[in-house]
Formats: sequence, structure tokens, C-alpha cells
Amino acid sequence: MRYLNEEAIDRIAIGAAVLGSGGGGDPYVGKLMAKQAIRKHGPVQLIDADDVPDDALIIPSAMMGAPAVMLEKLPNGHEPETSFRALEKFLGKQAYGVISIEAGGINSCIPIYTAATLGLPLVDGDGMGRAFPELPMVSFSIGGVSSSPMVVCDEKGNKMVLETITNAWSETLARTATVAMGLGSMLGIYSMNGATLKRLAVRGTMTLAEEIGRTILEAGKSRISALDGILRITHGLRLFEGKIIDVRRDLTSGFMRGTVFFEGLDKDKGAMFDLDFQNENLVGKRDGKAVAMTPDLITVLDQERGLPITTENLKYGQRCIVIGMPCNPIWRTEAGIKQVGPRYFKYDLDYIPIETLAGGSR
Amino acid sequence: MRYLNEEAIDRIAIGAAVLGSGGGGDPYVGKLMAKQAIRKHGPVQLIDADDVPDDALIIPSAMMGAPAVMLEKLPNGHEPETSFRALEKFLGKQAYGVISIEAGGINSCIPIYTAATLGLPLVDGDGMGRAFPELPMVSFSIGGVSSSPMVVCDEKGNKMVLETITNAWSETLARTATVAMGLGSMLGIYSMNGATLKRLAVRGTMTLAEEIGRTILEAGKSRISALDGILRITHGLRLFEGKIIDVRRDLTSGFMRGTVFFEGLDKDKGAMFDLDFQNENLVGKRDGKAVAMTPDLITVLDQERGLPITTENLKYGQRCIVIGMPCNPIWRTEAGIKQVGPRYFKYDLDYIPIETLAGGSR
Repeated sequence: MRYLNEEAIDRIAIGAAVLGSGGGGDPYVGKLMAKQAIRKHGPVQLIDADDVPDDALIIPSAMMGAPAVMLEKLPNGHEPETSFRALEKFLGKQAYGVISIEAGGINSCIPIYTAATLGLPLVDGDGMGRAFPELPMVSFSIGGVSSSPMVVCDEKGNKMVLETITNAWSETLARTATVAMGLGSMLGIYSMNGATLKRLAVRGTMTLAEEIGRTILEAGKSRISALDGILRITHGLRLFEGKIIDVRRDLTSGFMRGTVFFEGLDKDKGAMFDLDFQNENLVGKRDGKAVAMTPDLITVLDQERGLPITTENLKYGQRCIVIGMPCNPIWRTEAGIKQVGPRYFKYDLDYIPIETLAGGSR
Repeated sequence: MRYLNEEAIDRIAIGAAVLGSGGGGDPYVGKLMAKQAIRKHGPVQLIDADDVPDDALIIPSAMMGAPAVMLEKLPNGHEPETSFRALEKFLGKQAYGVISIEAGGINSCIPIYTAATLGLPLVDGDGMGRAFPELPMVSFSIGGVSSSPMVVCDEKGNKMVLETITNAWSETLARTATVAMGLGSMLGIYSMNGATLKRLAVRGTMTLAEEIGRTILEAGKSRISALDGILRITHGLRLFEGKIIDVRRDLTSGFMRGTVFFEGLDKDKGAMFDLDFQNENLVGKRDGKAVAMTPDLITVLDQERGLPITTENLKYGQRCIVIGMPCNPIWRTEAGIKQVGPRYFKYDLDYIPIETLAGGSR
């Protein structure tokens, strides 16, 4: 057990955005929100899943929607607490603590904000070890936890409690509500007891994110570069170094879908790289050949400082390094591949782990 | 106070469809559902709004969605009770009785079904005296009652409780959920106490519907025709007699929007009539000139028996009589015209009462 102070948030927001695989929201906005809450309410207690009593209630707190919109809608209200409290009320039980649903610049910081604001401990972990675009793409769902009852709130004051027959129906109904609410909403979802948490949570995600953030922020001071530090900590691989020559985006489905195109620089000169995303980066192709694919993590870093660039922030002309990182083992199981593998996202590709695929291009 | 038996349902379903102005659902399906419930649970007690204690809870029970889909989705489940009970649970109070939100072949019968199934009395009245397509188009809303909390259920078992900041937001969020649920859902909405009910309900709608239904079903036996009977009871006007030569429909918005075109018969020979609808009939034009418009009631009857034809049942070749009927006075107030007048539906028309407009074409 330890406490997260404002400096820890700087590190976590950036490191979580590296794990966010392009999604999970902009770290700048996430850290502002979490730091403000800590300034007001004091540091947040970070606990291990093993410290949670088996019958205690844990509620994940998260934002849903297109990340570009999260960026604009975030600072308006108290929706994270509202969703959390509404779910507690519906369940008729007080929560013991908060956990994040995914790793990402915003969705790692919202639970910190919620924990600080409500004076609750935060569990060091999440439900993915990365970010994914849809509600059932979480270890809790793979392990049989229902997303229901769930609460969806907007910043205007609209609120709904959903009880669905499947987690896929939660995705459908919460997504359409989120689109109607203006493309962004705040959730209380996948409530579970301590015993289930211990069985299903991806452990230590906050600490891992903080370690990645530290290596980026301290690069230059130490002798290892940000890139080397990230690759070492995440067992990652450098996939491509290049300049963005085009970004195509479409928001109509309530997701940010699109592709970013890179032209090689330095030792990748002459080669091309394109990377598809649906909120998160999905499949990266070097000269038309897939070299990394979901559920493995693919993140774009700025070439200069190694800072992660989320999909909504990709811009023409940026000089970048694309890296790939192996995902949590849960996503490489049959159920994991079925839920988040390339075929789920309509690619005619069988999943091949990044270590196998990209090993040669190191 | 009196009891509604199976024969009363035959009359009410047909008469309510006349008041439904083309919407509110097919009377055939509505009466099947209500009669089945009465067969199983016994006759339904029909009470006057004045018989409801001021502090008693009244919950309207209704179906939402495109009427063509209502027709297919209706008989599957127990959603009316589920929605009703879920709202009671959320409010923490047992309901004293049921009321219908609008007059229509399905939405007048669902509350009868609900009342029979739950063993509750039904209030003789509704919130419109006709049918309208959107949730805020109800006397309760005009009078300041909140649609929240409201429950939306589907036949698959999905359920949501909505708390919104305005009745327009309830419309938006419940409509998108209804579309996602497959274009039809069941609601518990506009809960109110007896005092509010007495202030705002349109009175006697069930009795009026039954009287209209009786005159249609008994036409031929008596000396007055169905048409004459309907016009006498509703203070209505004959607008046009003709054959349907085209029907255009679009379901994409979650409503059934479209236009039906008639070619004149008998004494309207040589003239044309077109009628726009959004679930309900909105504006009828004879040779391009508006002769009846929302909020007044416009209903298409089959020429032979005077039975109402709802918008989803309009078909090429049908021989019809189009009639218009003056709406309840609440819709002719400034607030009423603003909510349901022709300009709300994007017509560049000022509302003119049907008595003034169509008086000459009688």
C-alpha cells in the first residue's frame, strides 16, 4: 500500500497512455483532472487486489466515447462521482474501492479522480492492461462478470441505470446513449466483489504505468533513452520510425475509426507504415505486411521525447516511433482472441503474437 | 366505476384507433393482447380520475416505437408488467392504478393488459385524447410533470431506468434505446399522483373510444352509417373519399415517416389528396391546399365498414374516407401548439382549427 500524490499522476497519465495503445484518452486532460482532485482531497491510497476483502464491493469508474470528445467534455462536471454513487445506490451497498477498467491517459486517471473525490482506495490494476474500444473487451467480462447493472451519465445531468441480458447488449445500449449524449459519457460498470477482483484483475497496472512514465520523464537525465526504457519495461519492440503523411478519421459510429500513414525516416527510409485504429490502434502494416496486431499493444511515440500520441492527437507531419508490446496473457487465450483478435475487427488475419511477427524488424 | 370485459375491448381497440389519428398501433394486435389478459385475470375496473386519492400513485403504461414493429414485437413477453413494476420499485411505492398515455389501437390496450395482469384499476382517460409520436407530446408534460424516472424494457430482457433533465432528453435517450432494441420497447413513464392526474388527464378517453367502436361495429344494424356515427360522436368532418395510389414510408429515424396519396372517388372524383405522417397523420392536403393539420385528428377509414386504417397498414388500392376531428382544447393553447403544432413538425403553416379550415368541404 502506498499513496499517489500529484507527481505520481504526471507519471501515471503518460505511462498509461503508452499502455493505452493509442486509446484511453489524452494524458494531459487525464492528469489535470486527477491532480485537481488530489489537490483538493489529498493523496489517493493505492492498494493491492489482495488487500481487498472477498465480500467487499469494487466499482470500476470509466469514461465512454470517442477520445476526441472526451478531451472537450471532461472538465465540466461531477459525472464520475454521480455514476459511481448511483450504482452504489442501485446495488444498495457501499463500495470499498475503485479500479480502472483500462489503461489510458484518461481512463487510468478518472478512477484516481473518483477515488480522491470519494475518499476511497484505488486498486493497483485494471481490466485490460491496455485500452480497448468496446465494453465486453475486459478481463472481467471474459471471466463471466456482468456489466449490469451499469450507470451511464452525461455532463448535462442525464442518467440511466441499465440492466442487460449480455455485455454485448450493454455495449449497444450504452454506446447509442453515449452518442445521443454528445459522444461522451461516464460509467459505473462491472461491479464485483473482492474475490472476483482477485481472480480477474490485471495486476499492478498503475505501478507499471508509473514506471513507464518515470522512464519517459527522466530520459535525458539518465543514460537510457525514453524509447529504450519503455521497450525494456514493456518487453516491447520498435516497429517503425517515420513521419505522418496522412490521417483519416471517421466519428460516425460513436468510435473514432481511421488510419494513419507514415513515411519512413532514418533506418526505415524508403519504407511505408500504416496503422488502423478504432479508438485504439488495431493493426500496423509495414509495406502492406502486418507486423503487429490486436490484442498486442501498438503505440505511437513522438520521436523527440518518447511521449505517447493518442489516436485523436495524430497529425500530419509528426515524426514518430511506432512500438509494439505483448498483451496480457488473458488476451491470448481462445476467449480473448475471440473477443479482441483481428477477426473480431473484421480483418482476414489470424492472430500472431508480436514477438513472432515483428521479431525480424528489430 | 364499471368493468371492462372482452366485448368492451373489441369496441375500445377500434374506437381508440380512430382517435389514434393513424398512430397508436394496430387495433387487432392491441385487442388480442388485452382480451387475453382479461380472459386470464378477469375484467378490468374502469375508474374516473376523480375516484383516485390525491396522494395515490398512477403510472402510465405504453409502447414506444414504430407502429409497424409494434405489430411484430408485441406478443412476445411480459414487458408491460416488467416496466411498470421496475418503475414502482425505483419509486419505492406501489401504484394505485394505470392510465394510458395516448389513444390508439395498441396504446389504449396495453394499459388494459397491464391493469388486468396486475389486478389494478384503469383510469378512464389518457394524456392526449389522440396519439402523438414523441414523449413530450402529452398533457402531463404540458402541465409540468417529469417523464423521469422512466423505465424502458425490451422483449429480450434488457431494461433501463432513465433520469433526464428534460422530457425532450427522455425522448432522445428512450428513442435511441428503442431503435437499438429493434425499434420497439415498453415504457413506464410520467408517474404522477392523483391530484396531478385530476388536473391534467384528458378525461373519459376509454368511454369515448368505446362509443366510437360501438357505432362502427353496430353500423348496418342501426340506421346510421359508421361514418355518420363517428362524425357525430367526435364532432368530426369528412375530408376526402378516395383510393390510395401511393404510400411512401421511411423507418430510419425510429419513426415511421411518410406520405400517402389518394385519388378522388365519388363526389371527390377528379381531386387529389395527400396526407403526411410521422407515426400519426400530420397534415392533409386537398389538391395541394391544407384542409386539416396537427394537432387536430386526421384518420383514414376504410370506405366499406368505417374501420380505421393505421399508418403502417395503408396500402395501394385501398378505398378510404379521410376524416378530421377537433383535438382536445389543451392542444390549442399556446404551449400545445408549440409542442405539437405544424411548425414543430417543420411545416411552414400556422395552425388553423379544422372547423375553420375544412368547414367548406363538408
